[in-house]
Parts: sequence; C-alpha cells; structure tokens
Amino acid sequence: MPYRAWFQCINDQCKKQYPLNSIIYRCTACGSLLEVQHDMQVLAHRSATAWMKLFEDRYKSTQWPYGSGVWGKKEWILPQINDDNVVSLYEGGSNLFWAERFGKMIGIDNLWLKLCGNSHSGSFKDLGMTVLVSMVKQMISEGAPIQAVACASTGDTSAALAVYCAAAGIPSIVLLPKGKISIAQLVQPIANGALVLSLDTDFDGCMRVVQEITKDETIYLANSMNSLRIEGQKTVGIEIVQQFDWEVPDVIIIPGGNLGNVSALGSGLLMMRDLGLISRLPRIVVAQAERANPLYRSYLKNFETFEPIQAEKTLASAIQIGNPVSIQKAIRTLKQFNGIVMDATEQELADAAALGDTTGMFNCPHTGVALAALIKLIKAGKIDKSEHVVVISTAHGLKFTDFKVKYHEGTLDFPCHYANKPIDLPPNVDAVKEALRQELKKRREQNV
Amino acid sequence: MPYRAWFQCINDQCKKQYPLNSIIYRCTACGSLLEVQHDMQVLAHRSATAWMKLFEDRYKSTQWPYGSGVWGKKEWILPQINDDNVVSLYEGGSNLFWAERFGKMIGIDNLWLKLCGNSHSGSFKDLGMTVLVSMVKQMISEGAPIQAVACASTGDTSAALAVYCAAAGIPSIVLLPKGKISIAQLVQPIANGALVLSLDTDFDGCMRVVQEITKDETIYLANSMNSLRIEGQKTVGIEIVQQFDWEVPDVIIIPGGNLGNVSALGSGLLMMRDLGLISRLPRIVVAQAERANPLYRSYLKNFETFEPIQAEKTLASAIQIGNPVSIQKAIRTLKQFNGIVMDATEQELADAAALGDTTGMFNCPHTGVALAALIKLIKAGKIDKSEHVVVISTAHGLKFTDFKVKYHEGTLDFPCHYANKPIDLPPNVDAVKEALRQELKKRREQNV
Repeated sequence: MPYRAWFQCINDQCKKQYPLNSIIYRCTACGSLLEVQHDMQVLAHRSATAWMKLFEDRYKSTQWPYGSGVWGKKEWILPQINDDNVVSLYEGGSNLFWAERFGKMIGIDNLWLKLCGNSHSGSFKDLGMTVLVSMVKQMISEGAPIQAVACASTGDTSAALAVYCAAAGIPSIVLLPKGKISIAQLVQPIANGALVLSLDTDFDGCMRVVQEITKDETIYLANSMNSLRIEGQKTVGIEIVQQFDWEVPDVIIIPGGNLGNVSALGSGLLMMRDLGLISRLPRIVVAQAERANPLYRSYLKNFETFEPIQAEKTLASAIQIGNPVSIQKAIRTLKQFNGIVMDATEQELADAAALGDTTGMFNCPHTGVALAALIKLIKAGKIDKSEHVVVISTAHGLKFTDFKVKYHEGTLDFPCHYANKPIDLPPNVDAVKEALRQELKKRREQNV
Repeated sequence: MPYRAWFQCINDQCKKQYPLNSIIYRCTACGSLLEVQHDMQVLAHRSATAWMKLFEDRYKSTQWPYGSGVWGKKEWILPQINDDNVVSLYEGGSNLFWAERFGKMIGIDNLWLKLCGNSHSGSFKDLGMTVLVSMVKQMISEGAPIQAVACASTGDTSAALAVYCAAAGIPSIVLLPKGKISIAQLVQPIANGALVLSLDTDFDGCMRVVQEITKDETIYLANSMNSLRIEGQKTVGIEIVQQFDWEVPDVIIIPGGNLGNVSALGSGLLMMRDLGLISRLPRIVVAQAERANPLYRSYLKNFETFEPIQAEKTLASAIQIGNPVSIQKAIRTLKQFNGIVMDATEQELADAAALGDTTGMFNCPHTGVALAALIKLIKAGKIDKSEHVVVISTAHGLKFTDFKVKYHEGTLDFPCHYANKPIDLPPNVDAVKEALRQELKKRREQNV
C-alpha cells in the first residue's frame, strides 16, 4: 500500500481534507489552519527498527535526494513527490555542538546546541522551504498555473524562499514596506534574484497586498502558516534524536515568535513515538524575548487565556511578534510535552549570546534568548544540572553581525558584560609581550 | 604497525624530519617550509577498498570524532592524536551543489560547486584549523608551555582560529594594523574572545611582531604556512571524490592567493592515487584576481620564472597577495596535475558571482573569481562542455555582504550587469499585479 499524506483542517469539528497539490492556505469550509496528515497505518507496516535503519543508511548519503536531512525521511514528509521535483540544497545534518565549556559556566553537565544556521541560507528555514518549493515544482510539472511564489517577509523566510526558488528556476516575489528595510538586510533575496517590491505602506499593508495577489492561482503564497513548511521543519526533532543514537534528550529549548517551529518540533517527535522509534517525549521549552512574550504571559496563567500584545522592538527581531499565527498549535504542543515557557530581557539575551560565543558558538540573538532562558531555568531549579538538554540555534550569527558589533562596541542601551575590545599598542615587541602577559593572566584568573 | 606521520623539510637536498608535536614552523637546518609526511607503506597495508569502506562508514556518523569530514580520515591526517584532544566542529561534509542552471547558462553540462563556506566559521579554513588546534591541545596535554595561539590576519584565518580556540578553551591572539580594520570586519574573532591587538603599524609590521612573540614556545604561531593546516585542507579533494561515489572529476577549479590550498588539494588527491583509491588525477585550475595574479603571469611563461608583484586592491580581498608563501608547492602541484591558471577582472568576478547567485548560489568574491575563470576557459576552448567540473567555493557569501550590497546598489567602479533593485510601488493591488505581469514577462523572455 502506498504511503499517503494530505492537508487536513485542524478544527476538530471540521477536519476537511484536501490533496497536497491543492493551492490552498486555509480550510475553505471553516477558515481554520491546515496541517499535513499522514496515513499512519501504512507507515506502521514498517517496523521502528526498519525506519531507523533506513534513516541511518540515507543520512548524508550520495543517493539523490535522500542525503538531505529532510528528504532522507521522505515517506514521513511528502511521500507522493517525484524525486525529480525535489529542490534540495542538502539541508539538515547540521552539527549537534557539545557545549561543554558553556555548560560548565552555567552549571549543567550535558548541554548541546543544534546549529540549524550552519546551512545554505543560514537559518533553519531551509528545512521547511525545501518542502514548499519542491511541492510547487511538482504542481507546475502537473500543469498548475503557478508563475511565481510570494511572501511578505524581510528576514530568514524571504532569504530561504529566494534561494530555493533560484535553484529551481521559479521566480520569487518579496513584498516589504518602502524605506524601512535596507538593501543590506535584504541582500539574500536581492542577490538570489527575487522580485523585491517596495510598497509605500507598513508591514500589515504588505501582508494585505500579498494575500490579494495570491488569491488567483498564478502566484503561490509562502507564508508562515503554510503547513508544507512545517513538514520539513519537523525533521529537526527527529534528527536530534537520531544524532544521539536514538536516545531522547530530557529537554529541548527553542526560541518562539510566530510559533510554527514549536508545533513542528512536537510533530516530528510525536510521529516517532507513534511509530515506536521512541518511547518517551522530551520536555519542550519555548524561549521568548520579554518584549514580545504573549506565550509566556499565557503560560503564567496555565494557558487558560491568551491575549495578543503589541510587541516592542527587540534585538531578537525575527521573534518580535505579539500575535503569533500558530498560537493554538503551540499551546497544544506544550501541553503534550509538559512544556515550559521562559522569557529574557534584552540584556539577558545579549549577554547569553556573547558568553556562548566565547566558548565556540556564534549565536544569533534568538539563540541568545534560548540560552538566557536556559540559564534562568537552571537558577530557578526547573532544569536540573544532570539533565540532557538541547538548545535549537535557529540561525547563523553571520546573519546578525550588526547585533554583535554593537554589543562589542558597547553601543547598546545596557551594560555589555562580555564586550571584547581591541587593545591599542605600539608596534613594539616588548610592549606586546607585556600586554599579553597581563591579559593572559587576567583570563586565567577569570577562567574564561 | 602503527600509522605514523612527521614534519619533513620540503627541500629535496635537506629532508630533515621533526616530530609533529614539535613547536616548529620552518626547517631549523635550511629554513625551508615543512610538510607532513605519512608512512605510506603502513597505510598501504589496508587495501583501497577497505579505506573507502572505512571512510564511508564514518561519514557524518555519530562516533566521535569520526563524523567530521577531516577526522573521518584521521589515519591520513594526524594518526598519532588522541581522540580526546581533537577539537572538532563537525567540519567537512559540505554540500556538493549541482550547478545545473548556471552550467546551462555558461554552456557546460556537468558542473558542481563544493560549498566549503557552509561551515561553522563560514569558510574552508575550518578544515585546516581543526587540525592545528587539536595538535596544540595535544601538545599542551603533554606538557608543552603553550599559553596561546597567535596569527596576524584580518580575515577567515583569524575567524577560524578564534572559534576553534574558543571551543577548546585555549586563548587566541590576533594582531592587526590600527585603524585599518573595523570591528565589523573583525566581528568573528572579537565575538569568539580573541585577544585582538591593534598595532600602530602596517600589516607587514604586524607580521614581524607576531614572528617575534612566537619565538619562544609560550605563544604558538598559526600562520598560513603551517603544514598542519594543509593536512586538514587536503581532505577537500578526497571528500569531493567520495561524494561522487569515488569517481574523479575532470577538472577542479580553486581560487588562489597564498596558494596553500592548491598544494593541499593536490596532496589529498595524490595520497588517494598512491594508495590505489583512484587511478587518474583531475586537472587543477587556479583562478586569480587580475589585480593579484603573480601565478598567472608565471603560468604564461610555463613557470620558467616567478616574479612577486605588488598586488592591487581587489574585491577578492582574501587572495590579494602578490608574493604567495606557498608558490613553490603550488607550481609543483600544477605540474603534476596538468594545471591551468586563469585570471579575472573585477567586473568579471563580480558579474560571475552575481549570475551564480541567481541560480541558487550565494557566492563570496573569491568563488566569483573561480566562476569567471571557468567561463573564460570554456570560451577559450580549454574546458569542454562535456567535462565534469567542480568549483571549490571557499567561503559563505554572508561573510561578504558589503560586496553584494555595493554590486546591487550599483556603486562599484564598473557596470553591474546583474544588479537587482527593489521596485517602488504604491500599496495598490492592481499596480502590484501589473508590475508583476510585466516583470515576470521580462524574466521569461530573458530566460533567467
């Protein structure tokens, strides 16, 4: 029996189904979000052991497209796609970094970072975008009238969309508010040939326009609620477990804004449990910036209520979201995974990112939020020093060098405890030797 | 019999040997460069097939440290190192990108890019630095008095040195000329906690000081002639062949400045041939910026003479070198590999990088040099359209966003043929639809 997946309305009273090659973003019956459902009975015909062996055999292999961390799990993602339509840039398989030194500094023995930013476009968005763009390629090959794929985004989503479309030869469109974004911030979609439309309006205005222009089927919408992307992103949890030789960590910490990544993480882990690859679930911790913490506020009330907020400006710009699209899915996930939510101030996130960098990381500010949350949870006794903890690092620090430069120049609005400044010296060997003697002594004393 | 390697003077009249845990940078007898030699007879006790199977079994595996593309070939690199002393960030295993669209544009059927920049520090330097820092850690564990590792570099070398030292907990030192380099350019070593010494002199002055302070054994020198780094970098050629299921491509193109990477590439391929894993060698093409092309000038005279030049300022800043340290090794390699050298102007390198980006790459300027050289060699009939060609992409474009921003803003000194500028529009659905109709039509006509 063939493996099979379809879109299904997440509303339990509706559950309407649609084929995966439909050009559809919400349930046409009730307007709810959609999610991809798999025929789990057919998947269960293969044993857990056989799935694990298959995933291991394919991992980073040369057999197209299975060397990709996403497509190595193709039957769990998009079973009906033709391999020739897969648009893959060898996503996944990123380093699971043993944060030995940082762990010692903050009082935990077994800490790891999943470096999703060590990737083609520099963020975890590659994992989802490969699935979306591959499905678009398949739909075009089947005769769908799609001429381009569009999004209203100024960050990692537009970068990933543009580069996957460039690889596939499918035009991409990025809408953004005029005058608010520099070419430097947009350098990835610009370089990757996206049609960048700068509209004389704000971000919400761009969102309205993109929804209008994608109403007919010639422009496909790559927005963050697109559940095809979730299918790719869910491999991050599966891959973490695989990289620990199928041992489940105690805690996985993930930064949260629009919260699609939270339910994606949960979805992959639940699928492993349901198919018998794992027998327990980790706790999931969502880390938010204090300036954009609606989920944290709801958590403090046991998720009994949720109130959108007006997010304030935060260094963690990609999670500066007051009304997350995927809030209901995220709360459902946190309830299933004995979840915790923690937030972090601007100073906490910046210091945590910088301290991590001195131990061999190169953190984006969102990873800083996750590391700061971890530090606070250890101090609060909510995570024990003996627990096996993984932090999901969502982007490469090279995408956020301005943040780092300002931190080390000390030009942020708060004291930067780990700022590292060049030392001016005359070009004199003795002066240099003396400075080194002093500085190395200082470092030994600080034990940094 | 144990696997064994040692330093050996490259001067054929000298050939003096030193153990790999010596703190030594040049031959003490004759002053020549050193290279690492392996006991090939012992390595030959294992068959070619067995080596290939071993390398495949370890590739990206979870068995420390063999999942690294470098340490999976440990016996060929540093056989005597203790696994506990290995400082690895899961280097290697980077995407071998099938440049299908770009190949069609420039008239070649079988073109690939080895994306060495999709790595922890964002450049191929990780491959060598893991070996150098691991050896330093081993020497310290054996009681060597090394307190820190130093380099005079403002680019990828200092970034890789600082992050590997940060992971290992070994202090790193970066010397640079005062006032010439911004914190933004230095953000990686600064963030990774390097002691950055800003000296009131020029780059040569910094080189002199770093050589002085590393004369005693407390500060180890991580300069570009360090042959430990070559041992790691040589895995790039081995890995390319492995990723093609042990098929040797016809041509490998690599950008060249100081030229250490050229001999490293050759060294790995020769080792494969000598141990029977491959039976033929690819041609090696070195690509230089026209403004820093001493090797190209020597090539035009069949390498009969070599004259250092004064390099001019080029966008390909990392290869802006007029007097390459590894010139003799590189010429030796080119003679063995039926080599070609080609150069590229500023406009050629910038246009080639930008054209590549529209097909799913995200090129650094040095990769632009290599792509431009390829285009010129195809036009000149020196590379045939049916040949199997690999271009080594040395760094992630995210390290060179200024170059890309200037290109697309059109603020470089020449016409930028593929500049992509945002289109200003009113926030009006009909205006947007009309603009898209026109732009998409234009693109279909251009077939971009």
